[in-house]
Amino acid sequence: MPATLTGIRVYDVRFPTSRTLAGSDAMHPDPDYSAAYVVLATDSPGLEGHGLTFTIGRGNELCVAAVRSLAPFVVGQRLEDITADFARFWYRLTADGQLRWVGPEKGVLHLATAAVVNAIWDLWARAEGKPVWKLLADLTPEQIVSCVPFRHITDALTPDEALEILRRQAPSRAEREQELLAKGYPAYTTSAGWLGYPDEQVLALSREAVAQGFDAIKMKVGEDLEADRQRARLIREAIGPGRRLMMDANQRWDVPEAIAWMRELAEFDPWWIEEPTHPDDVLGHATIARELSPIGVATGEHCANRVLFKQLLQAGAIRFCQIDACRLGGVNEVLAVLLLAAKFGVPVCPHAGGVGLCEYVQHLAMFDFIAVSGSMENRVIEYVDHLHEHFLDPVVIRAARYQAPARPGYSIAMKPESLATYAYPDGPVWRDLASQARGMA
Amino acid sequence: MPATLTGIRVYDVRFPTSRTLAGSDAMHPDPDYSAAYVVLATDSPGLEGHGLTFTIGRGNELCVAAVRSLAPFVVGQRLEDITADFARFWYRLTADGQLRWVGPEKGVLHLATAAVVNAIWDLWARAEGKPVWKLLADLTPEQIVSCVPFRHITDALTPDEALEILRRQAPSRAEREQELLAKGYPAYTTSAGWLGYPDEQVLALSREAVAQGFDAIKMKVGEDLEADRQRARLIREAIGPGRRLMMDANQRWDVPEAIAWMRELAEFDPWWIEEPTHPDDVLGHATIARELSPIGVATGEHCANRVLFKQLLQAGAIRFCQIDACRLGGVNEVLAVLLLAAKFGVPVCPHAGGVGLCEYVQHLAMFDFIAVSGSMENRVIEYVDHLHEHFLDPVVIRAARYQAPARPGYSIAMKPESLATYAYPDGPVWRDLASQARGMA
Repeated sequence: MPATLTGIRVYDVRFPTSRTLAGSDAMHPDPDYSAAYVVLATDSPGLEGHGLTFTIGRGNELCVAAVRSLAPFVVGQRLEDITADFARFWYRLTADGQLRWVGPEKGVLHLATAAVVNAIWDLWARAEGKPVWKLLADLTPEQIVSCVPFRHITDALTPDEALEILRRQAPSRAEREQELLAKGYPAYTTSAGWLGYPDEQVLALSREAVAQGFDAIKMKVGEDLEADRQRARLIREAIGPGRRLMMDANQRWDVPEAIAWMRELAEFDPWWIEEPTHPDDVLGHATIARELSPIGVATGEHCANRVLFKQLLQAGAIRFCQIDACRLGGVNEVLAVLLLAAKFGVPVCPHAGGVGLCEYVQHLAMFDFIAVSGSMENRVIEYVDHLHEHFLDPVVIRAARYQAPARPGYSIAMKPESLATYAYPDGPVWRDLASQARGMA
Repeated sequence: MPATLTGIRVYDVRFPTSRTLAGSDAMHPDPDYSAAYVVLATDSPGLEGHGLTFTIGRGNELCVAAVRSLAPFVVGQRLEDITADFARFWYRLTADGQLRWVGPEKGVLHLATAAVVNAIWDLWARAEGKPVWKLLADLTPEQIVSCVPFRHITDALTPDEALEILRRQAPSRAEREQELLAKGYPAYTTSAGWLGYPDEQVLALSREAVAQGFDAIKMKVGEDLEADRQRARLIREAIGPGRRLMMDANQRWDVPEAIAWMRELAEFDPWWIEEPTHPDDVLGHATIARELSPIGVATGEHCANRVLFKQLLQAGAIRFCQIDACRLGGVNEVLAVLLLAAKFGVPVCPHAGGVGLCEYVQHLAMFDFIAVSGSMENRVIEYVDHLHEHFLDPVVIRAARYQAPARPGYSIAMKPESLATYAYPDGPVWRDLASQARGMA
């Protein structure tokens, strides 16, 4: 069905999560999970595209503003023209001769790009009547490659190599789709180990996670070594030696500190250490990976673009590739990283949590399984058990596995009442908090 | 004199440079040189701090918005508290637990950080009655080190190593200051070689540059190999074999393309190839540097932060370190990079041009000469001969050398009438252009 994009609406939505310390870590002690939320209107009755970019509070207003700066590149375009040469459209957004100066392909502008690009994928999937994972899984290798921005990564992956990877998996796609529909995709939980939680809560939540069937659990580390040791011991005891324990430092350390600190925690047998240092430090991650093996290094939620992922892979710096659905510039750039990871034989374990990230990344991991890597081995999707109630098509976890979404789109559309209630700064929740704060002052 | 910061004003200022193609290159064909311009007000009569961040048009509004997002961290602070522990204040701006998510230390937010931080340095220098280069050159090694954000670079440079570098140069600072005041600092020109200029103009401007005393001249490359060859031949003939010719691709190429293209241009004996590929590609630059030696690789104007510069130096990827006064997060982070470059023995050749960049970077290069590297060898500051008329204390070039500024501050204050005339979108220049455009439609 032909559709022309007629307008963009953008919302500043924030949830006051800092009041419960859910989401707290060594660098982000008081996040208010937030989204710059985008709705693309079209001239086709009932057809809209939804997308968001995730932030943790202050700064969300900048992503909202950046979506407005990108609007002229989108409004007036026809969906079929975009999808016919999607990489070209992606460059229109990311390589504008003026706008790219305030990126390029990083920070506020790239986060906003993701919201817009993902909204287009949502729109395309709705127009096709498929969830995004299925839309992707039904594209030919050639169609997929036409969506991928190869610029600045051809030294590591050429379009021909990408085609070869996709063609190798094509004959067995249907089999894996059946397996996915029957069994779902494995998840791990981060909900037990937030840094702001007291030990008893961590212990209770760890036991609960095990009871729910989780084989892998992640804790936050990096603020206080003794406290980390104490909590790691508690969790390891709760989950037993056979389950996986991951640790996440959220960029807290310098390189030598990361190595020294994790040697102290090695006795708890961590499967990976996530974000041990600055997200731009490819060589630092490579050094840490060498020094800490067999503990794997994982990173990606702050990895700005495919060029950084390319280098992490080239340098042997990561054993787990943690794509983020909106840190990268939307589905197109994620495809580039899935293909790079497949080429280098590194499993993709998406970053999720936040608000809407679980909803997003399930599609990406499922497509990766069906058409790119062809494997679920050593692969898990992060899962955090909050804020799903705001979505019209929330994730479904059964026996610690993500169930494949069935509804058309990217599962990211929020309930209109949530958009209204949590609108920042004028929605009722924020007005109430502001008046409480005035009352206390 | 004690002073408290009482407010921030921010201006969106844009110059319609795209109409002349001044500034045009292979990735930015039609820049409108712009600034998010900041004025810090204080409670001290007559004392203000000025700063700007440079952009090339669209997107400038996002830097303006980001300055407003940073304002709460600045307003109400006392200048003497900031400067007493300046690194700590720098982290307040760059490591806020919520705001850093939309960076960290890159893109829109970091560009805005630079405008604010530089305005504080301007303020400090005015309060001390000195130009910024002299303020810096009069600080003790310990004071300088207290301004430097070492976080995430201590694997390459510790505070003790930085102190050692600064102490080594301290006894001979006065000598070099005299030399600087007597002779100035060498410049090179980019004004002749913009990509949008026809050959005859390039030739005439190259001859003019030689007549003005320039020993080094830079041309833009990367769009069309035959055209590059033709223009390189013209310029080389105009400047002769003894002067330096630099080439600048502005990120246009993938890694293999950069190597192949520059091999074709090697016959014109380029001193350096600047920005051969994506600015985040440390390993790519290292590969290019290895393959193209003895042509040096130069980069930095899009190098987002000290962590990327650290890696470029660690990997042997650059022979010239091109700091940018507002791509990095202001003077404090520039100090980190000057010290890193000194440790690795790589000359710093600042990126300038744009609007206000020449005014800014002269201070940084002069301080580097006096107190850090102690040398002008193989060091040149970029010079572009436009838009200086908008500044109250514009750069002075004599015999192709920057003359040390004498007026207090960072030389970045613009004339009030320029701020008004070029205000975007409501200043008279932009209103006129808009009405002309309507007339033509």
